[in-house]
Amino acid sequence: MRELVVLGTASQVPTRTRNHNGYLLRWDGAGLLFDPGEGTQRQLLLAGVPASAVTHICLTHAHGDHCLGVPGVVQRMGLDGVRREVPVLYPAEAEQQVTALLAATAYVPLVPVRHQPVHPPEAVAAGDGWTLSAVALDHRVPAVGYRLQEADGVRMLPDQLERHGVSGPDVGRLAHEGTLTARGATVRLEDVSAPRRGQVFAFVMDTRWCDGAVELARGADLLVCESTYLDRDRELAEEHAHLTARQAGELAQAAGARRLVLTHYSQRYGDDPQPFLQEAREVFDDVVAASDLQRVALPPRR
Amino acid sequence: MRELVVLGTASQVPTRTRNHNGYLLRWDGAGLLFDPGEGTQRQLLLAGVPASAVTHICLTHAHGDHCLGVPGVVQRMGLDGVRREVPVLYPAEAEQQVTALLAATAYVPLVPVRHQPVHPPEAVAAGDGWTLSAVALDHRVPAVGYRLQEADGVRMLPDQLERHGVSGPDVGRLAHEGTLTARGATVRLEDVSAPRRGQVFAFVMDTRWCDGAVELARGADLLVCESTYLDRDRELAEEHAHLTARQAGELAQAAGARRLVLTHYSQRYGDDPQPFLQEAREVFDDVVAASDLQRVALPPRR
Repeated sequence: MRELVVLGTASQVPTRTRNHNGYLLRWDGAGLLFDPGEGTQRQLLLAGVPASAVTHICLTHAHGDHCLGVPGVVQRMGLDGVRREVPVLYPAEAEQQVTALLAATAYVPLVPVRHQPVHPPEAVAAGDGWTLSAVALDHRVPAVGYRLQEADGVRMLPDQLERHGVSGPDVGRLAHEGTLTARGATVRLEDVSAPRRGQVFAFVMDTRWCDGAVELARGADLLVCESTYLDRDRELAEEHAHLTARQAGELAQAAGARRLVLTHYSQRYGDDPQPFLQEAREVFDDVVAASDLQRVALPPRR
Repeated sequence: MRELVVLGTASQVPTRTRNHNGYLLRWDGAGLLFDPGEGTQRQLLLAGVPASAVTHICLTHAHGDHCLGVPGVVQRMGLDGVRREVPVLYPAEAEQQVTALLAATAYVPLVPVRHQPVHPPEAVAAGDGWTLSAVALDHRVPAVGYRLQEADGVRMLPDQLERHGVSGPDVGRLAHEGTLTARGATVRLEDVSAPRRGQVFAFVMDTRWCDGAVELARGADLLVCESTYLDRDRELAEEHAHLTARQAGELAQAAGARRLVLTHYSQRYGDDPQPFLQEAREVFDDVVAASDLQRVALPPRR
């Protein structure tokens, strides 16, 4: 299963309908929790996802709406029986805040948390067929975005397999070893398969427009991008080092992304995400203006 | 206005209907926020109370469900324009956790927070006609309860005022100065008034049954008491240093309290607070089994 579970969509302060940030990317067996703001523990419950699904915690920066949920999630994972190591990734400059977050209660951590300061640009985690990298963004405090890249692979072509007489366990063997002898002839993997491009997830949170954002979003199948402001307040966005919904659309467009998820809305525009949606759609087609507890699928493979 | 705004009623982990702990006591112009757990910032919003109403933050101990809401509340107060000093009270042994809580984000505090470690038993705060004191409780980590005591005063008796010819501004002068000459005679305050006992609010959170709990609750008009367990699990309660609903009723009874508010429920009993209510009512009459966002009034003066 690969999907994004949106846990919260508010910037700075929560509203009646929006919790602070929080996004769980479920990627096969992995669960990457991005920017858990205050209340994420309960939002996971409301979303029907156990805290034990979390395998990595990835912070873009140390503002409260992006990190105050960390201790609650870690404690909940411990209560739910998780004993495996959980890496917490964060810009290296946020070391003090992350240390404080994990020392903020009189609680003996049951989950071994591994501090993992990030020095972008670098690969910061890897899983079954994917790598996660971090790239610097341009915010008021040191901030990074994340990009999960699945390795390119191949897609078997049933008609070619049949034509070359490869079937059953031989298919897996060919995929693994690259060549095989069938009907007395050598069959190469490329004879019976087509390249399959790896899927990409990108997470661009608090930032001004910058090269790093474009680099993260390049060709992303699913791009989560902050859209704190509407474009009529672009000066304010620039001043506070944020993006507008239109800029998020422009980023998706410029980077050749496939699906854009808007979030991190300022409360100044009320509870309806439609204005953000409309604005981004003026420059990009496939836009989801996220609501709390929404699930967003990756678009089908190309 | 004097009322208790219940912000959350869950112990340990939140549920769909219960946020973590959090209680705002509105006492005339003061707003004493007790044990703000994670999500209190949003619960204040849902309760329709501005964070700026908070004047004191009082922690009973440093377990996460009693303190993880502190940074969010303090940040929200700053965003809402509060610039007065806000004392944060906590058992002295929780210094490290409170320091971490207030350093957990890359945020320049706008509200001057005053660390106030508490060494019970002692008076820890005072306001307009009231004092707040802390008494040690018996939990798994150092813990205190709090008691707000209004000073005793007098109630003017209209018929006696008339009989002695005291009216208009003279009433206030007599109350302030103690004596007055009216119709050529000396009138003493006690001639025209009856004693008025000060109201008492008591806050007994995570604890085993102990003398401190009884001392805090003595004659309280409003007693908030944890009732994590039902009495069928009294051994478990004892083991985890908590009270049962029946024990909360017994405490109210033993201490001569007037109204008991139950809260801090274990999720093991489901979402209905009725079983807690029934159990406490077997030993004490005026019981409220609190729900999130409920407001509880002080009983009328005796």
